[in-house]
Amino acid sequence: MEAEFDFLKVLLMLFVVFCSAKIASFIFNRIGIPGLVGEILVGVVFAIQIFDGSGIADMLGLFSYAPDGTREETMYYHILDVFSELGVMFLLFSVGLETRVKDLMSVGKAAFLVASLGVLVPFVFGYLYITCTDGKMYHALFMGAAMVATSVGITARVIKDMHLTDAKESRIIIGAAVIDDILGMIVLAIVSGMASSGDLNVVDIVVTTVSAFALVIGVMLFAYFGVPYIRKKVQERNDAKFEKDKDFIPTKFNMLIIAIAACFGLALLAKKIDLAAIIGAFLAGMIFAEYAVIWGLEEKVEAISTLLVSFFFVRVGLNVNLTGVDGDMLITVLIVIILAVLGKYIGCSVGAKLGDKSLDKTSLNIIGIGMVPRGEVGIIVAKMGYDMARRIDPEIFTQELFTVVVLMSVITTIIVPPLLSAAYHRKYKADFKVQPDDQF
Amino acid sequence: MEAEFDFLKVLLMLFVVFCSAKIASFIFNRIGIPGLVGEILVGVVFAIQIFDGSGIADMLGLFSYAPDGTREETMYYHILDVFSELGVMFLLFSVGLETRVKDLMSVGKAAFLVASLGVLVPFVFGYLYITCTDGKMYHALFMGAAMVATSVGITARVIKDMHLTDAKESRIIIGAAVIDDILGMIVLAIVSGMASSGDLNVVDIVVTTVSAFALVIGVMLFAYFGVPYIRKKVQERNDAKFEKDKDFIPTKFNMLIIAIAACFGLALLAKKIDLAAIIGAFLAGMIFAEYAVIWGLEEKVEAISTLLVSFFFVRVGLNVNLTGVDGDMLITVLIVIILAVLGKYIGCSVGAKLGDKSLDKTSLNIIGIGMVPRGEVGIIVAKMGYDMARRIDPEIFTQELFTVVVLMSVITTIIVPPLLSAAYHRKYKADFKVQPDDQF
Repeated sequence: MEAEFDFLKVLLMLFVVFCSAKIASFIFNRIGIPGLVGEILVGVVFAIQIFDGSGIADMLGLFSYAPDGTREETMYYHILDVFSELGVMFLLFSVGLETRVKDLMSVGKAAFLVASLGVLVPFVFGYLYITCTDGKMYHALFMGAAMVATSVGITARVIKDMHLTDAKESRIIIGAAVIDDILGMIVLAIVSGMASSGDLNVVDIVVTTVSAFALVIGVMLFAYFGVPYIRKKVQERNDAKFEKDKDFIPTKFNMLIIAIAACFGLALLAKKIDLAAIIGAFLAGMIFAEYAVIWGLEEKVEAISTLLVSFFFVRVGLNVNLTGVDGDMLITVLIVIILAVLGKYIGCSVGAKLGDKSLDKTSLNIIGIGMVPRGEVGIIVAKMGYDMARRIDPEIFTQELFTVVVLMSVITTIIVPPLLSAAYHRKYKADFKVQPDDQF
Repeated sequence: MEAEFDFLKVLLMLFVVFCSAKIASFIFNRIGIPGLVGEILVGVVFAIQIFDGSGIADMLGLFSYAPDGTREETMYYHILDVFSELGVMFLLFSVGLETRVKDLMSVGKAAFLVASLGVLVPFVFGYLYITCTDGKMYHALFMGAAMVATSVGITARVIKDMHLTDAKESRIIIGAAVIDDILGMIVLAIVSGMASSGDLNVVDIVVTTVSAFALVIGVMLFAYFGVPYIRKKVQERNDAKFEKDKDFIPTKFNMLIIAIAACFGLALLAKKIDLAAIIGAFLAGMIFAEYAVIWGLEEKVEAISTLLVSFFFVRVGLNVNLTGVDGDMLITVLIVIILAVLGKYIGCSVGAKLGDKSLDKTSLNIIGIGMVPRGEVGIIVAKMGYDMARRIDPEIFTQELFTVVVLMSVITTIIVPPLLSAAYHRKYKADFKVQPDDQF
């Protein structure tokens, strides 16, 4: 199936994707639109088949074609995929590095309510819409599940680019996105469990729920109590040795290596218990957050992120396949997008108001918008439904619904960055400045 | 051929390789042996098939087995390969960042003579040995070509770990390694051209030679004259604009992005003209060397390198396959290793003495040892001969010679780091200190 492996092709692919993304990001920034929109559009453009049915992505060797014309992902696509996954992991890791546990706890109640209502309302919207139009229960359940997830990667990038990680709204959004992701994974576990067994497996759901919350709470406790304790103990031990031997030089650890290992390890652990890898990466960042500046981690992780993160946004764009979209489907897509945006916006801003009475309208607006992007998570849900339909029962999901969810995910992702930066701008007029140095 | 792609497996593989390598590196450093030896040994251990014919590398999914038992590289191996290639690229890039053109020019004559004699003597040794024992011309030519290459990655890592990039010997070694690599590629082009056509294609050889030297000299001229000129022009333009408009804020560029793009681009260019990608990466580093500190590049590229470079050394170790080695072959391997070490040591130290009379014995010793490792370059030559034998004419190369060259390459690579750090230690007693912070 795969041809001979060629590193030259990999290098060319990485070079073209990296440069196109960064140039697009730079140009978009100059005209006042968040750079990542440009990066996503690079992916969209690469996926279009222009020359004789062959697009830039094909030229880069990302896809091959079976004799019947079916598009298949090549080894080079998977390599891009690895870079993209690592990119979003390191992005969330660096967001975690700026998220101290005590800051997160101070917005805990609001974040929890934002997440809960932000999951409930879109699920109900999606479920009801498909039930009314199509009537098949599994279609409705998967659509509901696909409406639930928030892709924190997009919002996190906007927040980081605007240097507003410390703002209260940002902390609520990030906290809510983490909880939202956990709730979303639980919803997905329930729906896919029902679809695969035709029944509800209560044990699996309880296990997923408990282990997800255990991981998050465990890591937060470790970051809050464990890390300062270890630091103190090491310090005391070194002081004692120095007392005895004035020439004693304490072993210096390269904290970046430990941080990367923790990031990989927690991402793995999260995946093992059916959470997204990025949740683990974010939690790993939180462990080091309190001392990130002392350890010089922020800048170093930022450098790694600079190398990798654009691959993620380009790949999001690559998933948009505009062939086979007709008028009827466009109307469905439009309705689903409106439901997806309204569901999150209403659910999250109401949740925020219930959780923290002191938030004003501009803040609720930021939170409502910030939670809208579905990104890759919605696509993952749709992909799972699509695969199950092929494997188990064609009744579970359809090709049309898949395209609808992909378009909904991508469009909610593309529209948010400019809206969100405008919303932040309204709130923090004075502080806001385009920071092109972070972009190019 | 390839099973379903699974990011969880990739993540697990990266995590296990990364952590094992860094822990081994840390332990080796503590006992006074350069960390990269530990990293290579991790690869060697991973490749050993212990449990029921299945080793750790197999468990990580790096290899699969055809029904007849042939070991095949999987997609996961290729992904490790990409990380390994990028790792050595960024390592050489960061060495380039510390190599200013004017420093390199000051050792130009010595470096050139070290490289030339360091190519000539080992080639003659390898050619004569095979001619005497086996008598086949192509075997002798390929063995000569495999003896020629210096793997600058290994030496560069030792030099960097010891913070001695600025030492005169280091600059001669790095400069000579670059020239050596160019000469090695030319020798390989001649030998493989002869083997594939049964004749000598003078045009191809001239094209390779001229384009290789043109690239190196072009980049050096650009780094020396072009970069300061551009900097000056941008500064003047910004000053003029500021003169007119006091609110003018000059566009700040993220130099890391430009540096990464240059690294990818020049690596590609080097590969296109049949040089190694790492030569391009090194040249790209040299472009930014003059202002690397001002632009904050060293620390950032170092962070990327920390993430990636261990994959390279582990993969070098993975290439050691100890099955099928018998007594006769061990003797051949031993003789070839001795010839490889002596050839380089004599050629390079004599070249250094001829090029720079002021070098004393300890310096010549450092240069002689520093040029010994063959690393991946020798293996690449052997692989090429092996592939040509299968494709064109079995007379060109044999399985046995392949194993001999691989073992020679790996062992010259493993023995050098401790010897080289001892040689540096002898010269720079006072300055030398193990720097565990760079290792773990």
